[in-house]
Amino acid sequence: MTAETSTKQQNPYGPNPSDFLSNVNNFQLIDSTLREGEQFANAFFNTEKKIEIAKALDDFGVDYIELTSPVASEQSRKDCEAICKLGLKAKILTHIRCHMDDARVAVETGVDGVDVVIGTSKFLRQYSHGKDMNYIANSAVEVINFVKSKGIEIRFSSEDSFRSDLVDLLNIYKTVNSIGVNRVGIADTVGCANPRQVYELVRTLRSVVSCDIECHFHNDTGCAIANAYTALEGGARLIDVSVLGIGERNGITPLGGLMARMIVAAPEYVKSKYKLHKIRDIESLVADAVEVNIPFNNPITGFCAFTHKAGIHAKAILANPSTYEILDPHDFGLKRYIHFANRLTGWNAIKSRVDQLNLNLTDDQVKEVTAKIKKLGDVRPLNIDDVDSIIKDFHMEVNTPRLKAKQEGTPTDEDPLDITGEPATKKAKV
Amino acid sequence: MTAETSTKQQNPYGPNPSDFLSNVNNFQLIDSTLREGEQFANAFFNTEKKIEIAKALDDFGVDYIELTSPVASEQSRKDCEAICKLGLKAKILTHIRCHMDDARVAVETGVDGVDVVIGTSKFLRQYSHGKDMNYIANSAVEVINFVKSKGIEIRFSSEDSFRSDLVDLLNIYKTVNSIGVNRVGIADTVGCANPRQVYELVRTLRSVVSCDIECHFHNDTGCAIANAYTALEGGARLIDVSVLGIGERNGITPLGGLMARMIVAAPEYVKSKYKLHKIRDIESLVADAVEVNIPFNNPITGFCAFTHKAGIHAKAILANPSTYEILDPHDFGLKRYIHFANRLTGWNAIKSRVDQLNLNLTDDQVKEVTAKIKKLGDVRPLNIDDVDSIIKDFHMEVNTPRLKAKQEGTPTDEDPLDITGEPATKKAKV
Repeated sequence: MTAETSTKQQNPYGPNPSDFLSNVNNFQLIDSTLREGEQFANAFFNTEKKIEIAKALDDFGVDYIELTSPVASEQSRKDCEAICKLGLKAKILTHIRCHMDDARVAVETGVDGVDVVIGTSKFLRQYSHGKDMNYIANSAVEVINFVKSKGIEIRFSSEDSFRSDLVDLLNIYKTVNSIGVNRVGIADTVGCANPRQVYELVRTLRSVVSCDIECHFHNDTGCAIANAYTALEGGARLIDVSVLGIGERNGITPLGGLMARMIVAAPEYVKSKYKLHKIRDIESLVADAVEVNIPFNNPITGFCAFTHKAGIHAKAILANPSTYEILDPHDFGLKRYIHFANRLTGWNAIKSRVDQLNLNLTDDQVKEVTAKIKKLGDVRPLNIDDVDSIIKDFHMEVNTPRLKAKQEGTPTDEDPLDITGEPATKKAKV
Repeated sequence: MTAETSTKQQNPYGPNPSDFLSNVNNFQLIDSTLREGEQFANAFFNTEKKIEIAKALDDFGVDYIELTSPVASEQSRKDCEAICKLGLKAKILTHIRCHMDDARVAVETGVDGVDVVIGTSKFLRQYSHGKDMNYIANSAVEVINFVKSKGIEIRFSSEDSFRSDLVDLLNIYKTVNSIGVNRVGIADTVGCANPRQVYELVRTLRSVVSCDIECHFHNDTGCAIANAYTALEGGARLIDVSVLGIGERNGITPLGGLMARMIVAAPEYVKSKYKLHKIRDIESLVADAVEVNIPFNNPITGFCAFTHKAGIHAKAILANPSTYEILDPHDFGLKRYIHFANRLTGWNAIKSRVDQLNLNLTDDQVKEVTAKIKKLGDVRPLNIDDVDSIIKDFHMEVNTPRLKAKQEGTPTDEDPLDITGEPATKKAKV
């Protein structure tokens, strides 16, 4: 029955068979570290750093790299031109307001595509640009026709799409689709959409336009990765990401986190297209540039992402890693770690450590030394050296001829605990 | 038309009207910082710290506090008894294997409820406990009847539920429901479920059992908050959380992040039930105890969660914060911050700073000084002191009588830039 089950459910996390227009197996990435990421509070990228980041993203395999508007500042324009001249495999985009003044500058930079955005919610229409939907549609048509006339890709996106009137939205998307826009975009600008809401909107839009759909999700309520995934299920093709998710406020869908999500659903596609073992280096590059630490709980690269602690988990992981781990750390150039130096440890984890230390103990002996370790772990935090000392001391004791005076032979808990290494608990501060 | 729209769509992020059994407006929290959180690589809580954390969680308003199994170690049992004696409003739970040996110890600790869990996936059945579904069902019935006979609440949860056979799962849930279990639990033990998958499973289970449904989501692929939300939409009532999400590997649904998610959907319920302004203190307490930093991009409490940078954002935020912000920082005892010291700044943000400095400049003058600020921002990172110096210098210049020699009067970019405060870019390291 197990065999039958396993043939029927080869990947329980694979694409939902009821999503006929799903792009879970066929998505593209638009990395916006050099646009949205520049809007992160700490970000200041000079030309050299921008080029270094662009090359790293290109090497990783992102499909598009989006840059700050060339009208944001003089240097922004020059940097955009410099990156366009690098001859990267990734297509270069710049992101502008839906306005001819911006479009005229953008098309002269050498970019492969232009992303235009305009606020369509009543909030943005009232407090940002103050225009009505007719004005927005007319501007969009003018800008799109102009950019297309230069032979450059063009995307039209609404802003704050989930607080926009649905009929207004569909009207303008239908209009821009009919004049041949390359992509339309949905943006959760305030970061509050939820996954099923995203799925419904994307699926509805999918029935209205023939062009590709791109989605942009802020992470204020922690759903940016999940929203990106359900958008692909609903028929979106492209997802905006940034390295570590940096952007306005607490940012957008992170590149690394989305890769963790996607490799579970579409392992072959993801592994063949993106250099996953480069994620750690790219994250370090950007984290250093914007002076932040990699979050301790970051998917894939957080310091504990592949650390297993509870005894019951460690036992099963040692027998078969898939038991408690569906992401394989080796896919990302990383390793798993069994955390055995704590009071929750179990004898299977300790047995594995005994083997690593190349010592011989029977199962009963391992259980005995495990009890000693757990007892000390109740008193204070343990590190690997603590445990190794207890194991080695115990091993010496049980392998020493009986003549050793027994009343002296029982090791005290204090005795063997000279700490020679870096305590495990310090690792989080790295 | 705007008025009509606003009456029809009072809260676009509110509960989905098609979810008849939704508990988005009626959920409960089981905080597992002192159980799942103890399985975090860095965690070692002594008795005093456990009591401090339990009291803080109780004060915040969580409905349940879950503690490590009393059989994990001698001290774990003593700590469990000590917390039960505190007389907290929150109900105290402990979490055990589905085994009579554990249950007999658990019911003597003074807890209000016992959470039992057993692996039902073929992985866990093969590599962890090695039992078949009949054995699991028999153990469950024995343990549930025993715990109930002591007048204590009992939850039965499967482990790795999304890789378990659906028929096996529903069978065992139906069995334990029929003998009067208080709650059944679904657990995404490997952290790979996606939101719509969660919704489907919870909704199906909702039609099989009459008791409450509890859900537990790991965050390996970044979807733990979104999965919790869709579980509530599908009819789950209780969500397992921990402070900062600490737990095995990169942890579970974080308390603070889930509050960000829920306040958007059910603002009155959340604000009336939980002391949201305590989130920052609780997170600091736990972060210090396990020696990690609050992630820079943490929902609500990340250092940039309410920081707005791009000129176009700052303009609208100044006119109406709801434009780019659906979470109100004041709900959490926090403040928003307009980041104006950078090359992406706009004249509206600078005008606001000029007003804060109590200086008088015309709009044209503000635009002129904004251009100076953006020019320097192209060369290097700016901080608030840089910008204030430029503004004050400019203000002095335009308000100085003409006799001052004009060729000398233009401030150089170097001149006014003595840095007297902490650069904004250092804040991320705090």
